[in-house]
Amino acid sequence: MSRAHERAAGLRLMAFDVDGVLTDGTIWYSADGDALKGFSTLDGHGLRMLQMAGIELAIITGRRSRALELRCENLGIARLYQGVEDKRGRLDLLLAELGLSRAEAGYMGDDVVDLPILRACGFAATTMDGHPLVREHVDLVTRRGGGRGAAREVCDFILAAQGKLDALHARYLLDTDR
Amino acid sequence: MSRAHERAAGLRLMAFDVDGVLTDGTIWYSADGDALKGFSTLDGHGLRMLQMAGIELAIITGRRSRALELRCENLGIARLYQGVEDKRGRLDLLLAELGLSRAEAGYMGDDVVDLPILRACGFAATTMDGHPLVREHVDLVTRRGGGRGAAREVCDFILAAQGKLDALHARYLLDTDR
Amino acid sequence: MSRAHERAAGLRLMAFDVDGVLTDGTIWYSADGDALKGFSTLDGHGLRMLQMAGIELAIITGRRSRALELRCENLGIARLYQGVEDKRGRLDLLLAELGLSRAEAGYMGDDVVDLPILRACGFAATTMDGHPLVREHVDLVTRRGGGRGAAREVCDFILAAQGKLDALHARYLLDTDR
Amino acid sequence: MSRAHERAAGLRLMAFDVDGVLTDGTIWYSADGDALKGFSTLDGHGLRMLQMAGIELAIITGRRSRALELRCENLGIARLYQGVEDKRGRLDLLLAELGLSRAEAGYMGDDVVDLPILRACGFAATTMDGHPLVREHVDLVTRRGGGRGAAREVCDFILAAQGKLDALHARYLLDTDR
Repeated sequence: MSRAHERAAGLRLMAFDVDGVLTDGTIWYSADGDALKGFSTLDGHGLRMLQMAGIELAIITGRRSRALELRCENLGIARLYQGVEDKRGRLDLLLAELGLSRAEAGYMGDDVVDLPILRACGFAATTMDGHPLVREHVDLVTRRGGGRGAAREVCDFILAAQGKLDALHARYLLDTDR
Repeated sequence: MSRAHERAAGLRLMAFDVDGVLTDGTIWYSADGDALKGFSTLDGHGLRMLQMAGIELAIITGRRSRALELRCENLGIARLYQGVEDKRGRLDLLLAELGLSRAEAGYMGDDVVDLPILRACGFAATTMDGHPLVREHVDLVTRRGGGRGAAREVCDFILAAQGKLDALHARYLLDTDR
Repeated sequence: MSRAHERAAGLRLMAFDVDGVLTDGTIWYSADGDALKGFSTLDGHGLRMLQMAGIELAIITGRRSRALELRCENLGIARLYQGVEDKRGRLDLLLAELGLSRAEAGYMGDDVVDLPILRACGFAATTMDGHPLVREHVDLVTRRGGGRGAAREVCDFILAAQGKLDALHARYLLDTDR
Repeated sequence: MSRAHERAAGLRLMAFDVDGVLTDGTIWYSADGDALKGFSTLDGHGLRMLQMAGIELAIITGRRSRALELRCENLGIARLYQGVEDKRGRLDLLLAELGLSRAEAGYMGDDVVDLPILRACGFAATTMDGHPLVREHVDLVTRRGGGRGAAREVCDFILAAQGKLDALHARYLLDTDR
């Protein structure tokens, strides 16, 4: 088992950045302002599986967007923290509330402003198209880009490290008659 | 003739997932909610050719979208099943209605929730950017991504396996005077 | 000089398909229907340079879109033919009107329905992500995808074949004092 | 230190093109006209860091867009010049106003119309998907595409050449307790 697997095995909370992680990093503007966000359907199922497996989910992002709120409602993610300047501080408040340690928390981010929270967490992940400096400071760099299944890779990785992925997949593979 | 060709040769009904298959898997949210879907013009012509060749078409998806309804109207696809939780069950109902067997049906999906219907069908396909576990359980993995011509590859593959593709192409190659 | 260059050298009219050629082939639907089209800024300048060089421009497409009309207005393209079922027939009418022969006309398309007009024209081009059968029947396959500069490559190719590209570029390279 | 680094080391003003540089070059049209622009969150942070480092920022573009104005407001970029036909002339006016020389100015553009300003500046950059002729006339070609972090690469390059990047990154790497 790799060091990244060991770190992921003990996670109780996984938190995600939004732009560049759950999206491809494109900030869409219309003539009326911040307009659209594009999320991945693969990521959506990964986030649902994390919840099914009893892992707490959170979104901690520096921006604000109504589109993000709607996506979180759709996925049943209640812990949505927007407009956060000090992400690590926000995480610490949440950990205190949940009675968890930083070692039990993970974060996935893509830019240098995420380095403090990434380096504080027990498990840190980024995307293949994240900033080069971030890629040097995380446990896992995904093969897919942000908004293209990168978060799903992280979800699958954590669930596999905790020995829960096969059971979650088994329900789709059993009881068929082909 | 490969095993995949053999399986495709007998198809009477081909059903498709939407997000990640007929689109690139991006779920677009605006401030008003689920906003846009991006379909491929190459796929559109493939779906029309399947219909011309007498193969029944269906769309079976877990989500709901007005944009999808409009696309199906545009392509003349009447069998559109949205918000389906049990895709295999929905397929079985359709097969009973049409008097077809599972061996005569195909499905194209991209995520693990599609495994039950994919494994039940006589022919199963996914995209190059589908979930890795799905790629292990299908007859055909396309070279193009979802929403980028992946479904067209499947249509062409089926039509070729049934010996109908050359005739459909011939109408565009004959009667020219260059 | 290659055969493709020879064919392009005599062009007096160049016509383009839209979806998959001037766009990446994505047909966007909103809840209100056909919604957006994404054109390339590189292509835009190429189309302007063709006009500057005295080559007639036309758009011949099977679909209809208000977005396309606005793009053509922006680029000063007056010969816009939408909803065309018989593209080759539409081209022949235009050639008669202009007093040109098919050998003096070029077309760029991406799907099998474009084969009749492509094979009738003196010069035929497609994109790297066009349908494989189309790629076999054209003089030029671009290295860029549709909506990503593919049409610009064709414009540059034609202008170079006619010995006009260097003069068009020279105005951007002369009279600088670095 | 490469010649490109030397040229970037003395920059006091950095100006950017928009379409194809801060975006991927797609011009989006809706039925109502020019609709959306997609900017990169990575670029956004790079532009903020340039400002923090005391480098003047400007946007000089041939088109006009309300979406761009909103993006610039969001990033605190006051020097926004839209609808500019003579970019080099517009730069010269700005340099006179600021009391700077052309050698102290940089520009990032992607098409042949940008060659006069690019060749006049002390430092010139383009994207990996810029026009081939432009790539021959610049000091730096980014590895990322326009709207996908290309401008961030340029910002990081300039800041590194000026010996300021490590200090800007250090604030994200110090004072953590993992």
